[in-house]
Amino acid sequence: MTKSALANHIKSVLILSEEELSEILSYFDFHKLTKKETLLSAGKLCNRLFFVEKGCLQLYFIDDLGNHKTTQFAMEHWWLTDFLAFQNQKPSNFYVETVEKSKVLSISFSKHQELLDKCPKMEKYYRNIYETAYGAALMRLKYMNSLSKEEMFFMFRDNFPEFVQRVPQYLLASFLGLTPEYLSEIKKKQLS
Amino acid sequence: MTKSALANHIKSVLILSEEELSEILSYFDFHKLTKKETLLSAGKLCNRLFFVEKGCLQLYFIDDLGNHKTTQFAMEHWWLTDFLAFQNQKPSNFYVETVEKSKVLSISFSKHQELLDKCPKMEKYYRNIYETAYGAALMRLKYMNSLSKEEMFFMFRDNFPEFVQRVPQYLLASFLGLTPEYLSEIKKKQLS
Repeated sequence: MTKSALANHIKSVLILSEEELSEILSYFDFHKLTKKETLLSAGKLCNRLFFVEKGCLQLYFIDDLGNHKTTQFAMEHWWLTDFLAFQNQKPSNFYVETVEKSKVLSISFSKHQELLDKCPKMEKYYRNIYETAYGAALMRLKYMNSLSKEEMFFMFRDNFPEFVQRVPQYLLASFLGLTPEYLSEIKKKQLS
Repeated sequence: MTKSALANHIKSVLILSEEELSEILSYFDFHKLTKKETLLSAGKLCNRLFFVEKGCLQLYFIDDLGNHKTTQFAMEHWWLTDFLAFQNQKPSNFYVETVEKSKVLSISFSKHQELLDKCPKMEKYYRNIYETAYGAALMRLKYMNSLSKEEMFFMFRDNFPEFVQRVPQYLLASFLGLTPEYLSEIKKKQLS
């Protein structure tokens, strides 16, 4: 069944009848995507919020020198978009792209507003999601201000082993602010 | 009136009767604080969430070398705590301290749960707060990965002039990951 990952995720936070759950799911569109498909482009109105049923998305931007820089990954059960631009209905500061073959749900801004109005219980669900995401972002800022880039890599490898295994090395390097060559050196040094 | 900044902030998001609003405010404790008072300590159970009515708070940690490092500031109308530790009722990874003379509201974890159960409209309020905070954190991560520390300072000065004016230079330097000496040099260079 499509949308089952979202259904289970919502049920882990809220107590809902099957009817309510089915109504909630009806607001979402299902997308079966291949690797490197673009779901949102920088400069275009940020009109969609994404949930990863299976696979992996990245939120990235292109800097002034033309370098691709990954700011966030989203694997199974994570939500992703440019949240400030989505909330304010502004052009996106980021691109959203699939990192691997993925099954993704999306909801437009107007449908999302309608969902929250019709099913106010969903406010609790999103409050939980964003509270966790913001808390995790503060922890990431803490690590960035206390660990070397090498230590950051080891912290990620130890805490999120699946993440380090699944994400291509050049993207992991971009996320950690390393060159792919330096990441490769760190990994070699560790093996020797 | 104490708690009026929170009352106005909540009313900017929710439509509430005066009775509902007054009930919500009754969950919060008011604190009149001097500069450099500690509200939360790293390693201690993170049992409180803070709202700044007036003044400024900082979220900081002490690194392995004993350096004080500021991860986040909160001025008027901002919420602050170690959100992950608060949500999971774990020891805090951060300290929370006043940067200047401040009026702060706080709520304990159990009272916060009770408030959300009794006034579920508040879920929408916090969903909004955390959605904005997470979106802003992603933008900050983007800037950190695309701007030099000097450019970061100018971006902050241009976008948050009051913040740069009010926060002591050694804390601003800590927040930007600079030494106070280097920040002083950047500012001198700009004037010359």
